Amino acid sequence: MTDNTSDDVSRAPSLTLLGLGDMGTALARGWLAAGYSVTVWNRTPGRARALVAAGARPAESAAAAVATNSLVVTCLLDDASVGAVLEGVDLTGRDLVDVTTGTPAEARQRGAWAAGRGARFLSGGIMAVPPMAGIPEAGGYVLYSGSAELFETHRAALAVPFAARFVGSDAGHAALQDVALLSAMYGMFAGVTHAFALVRGEREIPLKEFAPLLSGWLTAMSASIEQTAEQLQSGDYGSGVVSTMAMQAAGIGTFVGTAHEQGVSPQLLTPYFDLMKRLVDDGRGAESAAGMVDLLAPGDGR
Amino acid sequence: MTDNTSDDVSRAPSLTLLGLGDMGTALARGWLAAGYSVTVWNRTPGRARALVAAGARPAESAAAAVATNSLVVTCLLDDASVGAVLEGVDLTGRDLVDVTTGTPAEARQRGAWAAGRGARFLSGGIMAVPPMAGIPEAGGYVLYSGSAELFETHRAALAVPFAARFVGSDAGHAALQDVALLSAMYGMFAGVTHAFALVRGEREIPLKEFAPLLSGWLTAMSASIEQTAEQLQSGDYGSGVVSTMAMQAAGIGTFVGTAHEQGVSPQLLTPYFDLMKRLVDDGRGAESAAGMVDLLAPGDGR
Ligand SMILES: NC(=O)c1ccc[n+]([C@@H]2O[C@H](COP(=O)([O-])OP(=O)(O)OC[C@H]3O[C@@H](n4cnc5c(N)ncnc54)[C@H](OP(=O)(O)O)[C@@H]3O)[C@@H](O)[C@H]2O)c1
Ligand SMILES: NC(=O)c1ccc[n+]([C@@H]2O[C@H](COP(=O)([O-])OP(=O)(O)OC[C@H]3O[C@@H](n4cnc5c(N)ncnc54)[C@H](OP(=O)(O)O)[C@@H]3O)[C@@H](O)[C@H]2O)c1
Repeated sequence: MTDNTSDDVSRAPSLTLLGLGDMGTALARGWLAAGYSVTVWNRTPGRARALVAAGARPAESAAAAVATNSLVVTCLLDDASVGAVLEGVDLTGRDLVDVTTGTPAEARQRGAWAAGRGARFLSGGIMAVPPMAGIPEAGGYVLYSGSAELFETHRAALAVPFAARFVGSDAGHAALQDVALLSAMYGMFAGVTHAFALVRGEREIPLKEFAPLLSGWLTAMSASIEQTAEQLQSGDYGSGVVSTMAMQAAGIGTFVGTAHEQGVSPQLLTPYFDLMKRLVDDGRGAESAAGMVDLLAPGDGR
Repeated sequence: MTDNTSDDVSRAPSLTLLGLGDMGTALARGWLAAGYSVTVWNRTPGRARALVAAGARPAESAAAAVATNSLVVTCLLDDASVGAVLEGVDLTGRDLVDVTTGTPAEARQRGAWAAGRGARFLSGGIMAVPPMAGIPEAGGYVLYSGSAELFETHRAALAVPFAARFVGSDAGHAALQDVALLSAMYGMFAGVTHAFALVRGEREIPLKEFAPLLSGWLTAMSASIEQTAEQLQSGDYGSGVVSTMAMQAAGIGTFVGTAHEQGVSPQLLTPYFDLMKRLVDDGRGAESAAGMVDLLAPGDGR
């Protein structure tokens, strides 16, 4: 499984990691803690120092780092930086695992590009923040798609910093699900931002007491996600609806009005309210919110 | 505690409920199941029929319903409908509990209006959907603010359909927290809508498998809410940040690009991304997202 050229660690599993930002550093620490020999390289060399003190092996260049191990992981800012770092580097026979966040098309193109250079390719989408690395209870994981063979070969190594989930041979599918999950998170963060802006001016509502109410409520309401999936799959948005679009749209004035009373701009929520109104205008007031998905991606609509 | 004028149920606790929409009906069923005598009235009389079959007592008019019990609960579409229903009704000596969703200012005005008519007033914000009524494990609750005396007097009755939480004597504070929590929920729903729109066209990503990933991820990420509260309270947005605004803003192209690749309009997320860019432009790229709250409500900013 490993291809380590160094004698003293020949029995330790080994890999190369390019990119030592917040996430790359967390990955490296996870592998080091599990006894891996980790060869590291970063554009700005200073960032490798603490890791080297912790046992990582510094490489002079990206090419030298890649030449050291068959398993090469890239964790860089974006796909363009992956191209920049690997430009002109010999990838023949390497197993390239790119956990840099990118679009599905970028992942597919990077996979074809790697294949053209004689490498197997796996694209990863990290569903975690750095402090979760190496802590299985924290629930972080990485979605992988692309070469199933590569995934099987390196399954044990990949599962060290975060749990590893293979989601298919289309190299773009890990990125697609990654971006979808993160997009939903940004929506949630937008709502949380608005909520905090509404209450923070009130002395009688301590934010530390409000915060657990907020996370508890969002967790409770996330139960509706599975119902929405069922409705989208069946195409029936109207059976058993308990919070109709008409009732919800009737509340828009309350939401915008409260924002104005509290001196808060409603800009983060306005687009959602506008879609609510459109659904009601389209005669779908007795339905659930599932129809919003049709408005956002008309091509897939019913 | 009760003021029942009817002989046969003189020992049963009793109350009056005005408004038998989806939520009012759920409340009524909760009280009926707990053995309460519930006098009901609804503008469209047909909606009372099933409840009357289940033991509710129909009233001829809102005024007659109000005259029957000291505890009067209103669950109507909006504050204007509360005004319309109670117009000219004698409220002297009544305990009016309004669980209609409204703005903080509407709740305060409704409280003053009720006081002017000789009634005690409590405003409630329902943090639940109708099917959760009477099922404590479902976790639904109602935030109440206004008259602490009224709340103490009717605490047992109020806790029947949903858990009851008193959050202060300012009649507007239940509404404010209610609207804040629901606003956050709409943000989350906007994100969920975008996420489903991204993946639903892909045969290899069954929505029923994606949905639990999505709710699990949002639940995991809601852990950041308490950190954001601490940062807002301390004013320190820069210590120990693991996902900097600069790194996140660098990903905007990936999010918008993926939406375009999938034929999805990014309209629900664009305002949040715009605020991200503004924070970075303001020189706060090394900070967390807490600074967004300042941008939304400049008056409260640092
Ligand atoms: N942090 C998180 O919470 C998180 C969560 C999930 C996924 N991710 C993803 O993980 C990846 C890395 O994130 P991060 O938090 O580690 O970011 P970061 O702290 O900003 O680090 C970025 C890394 O990319 C390198 N880089 C940027 N442009 C480069 C270029 N043109 N050529 C060579 N190297 C370049 C940087 O090198 P220098 O040191 O020389 O600048 C650094 O190693 C991103 O795709 C991110 O979306 C992060
Ligand atoms: N459903 C939920 O998921 C949910 C969750 C939390 C909070 N809430 C809140 O609970 C309240 C009621 O919601 P709901 O779901 O029961 O709504 P709904 O099913 O639409 O019912 C609305 C009720 O208000 C009455 N009404 C509307 N306009 C009126 C007027 N001008 N005069 C007299 N009566 C009028 C309706 O009477 P008619 O039958 O005659 O039309 C009906 O009883 C709302 O404030 C809502 O925000 C609902």
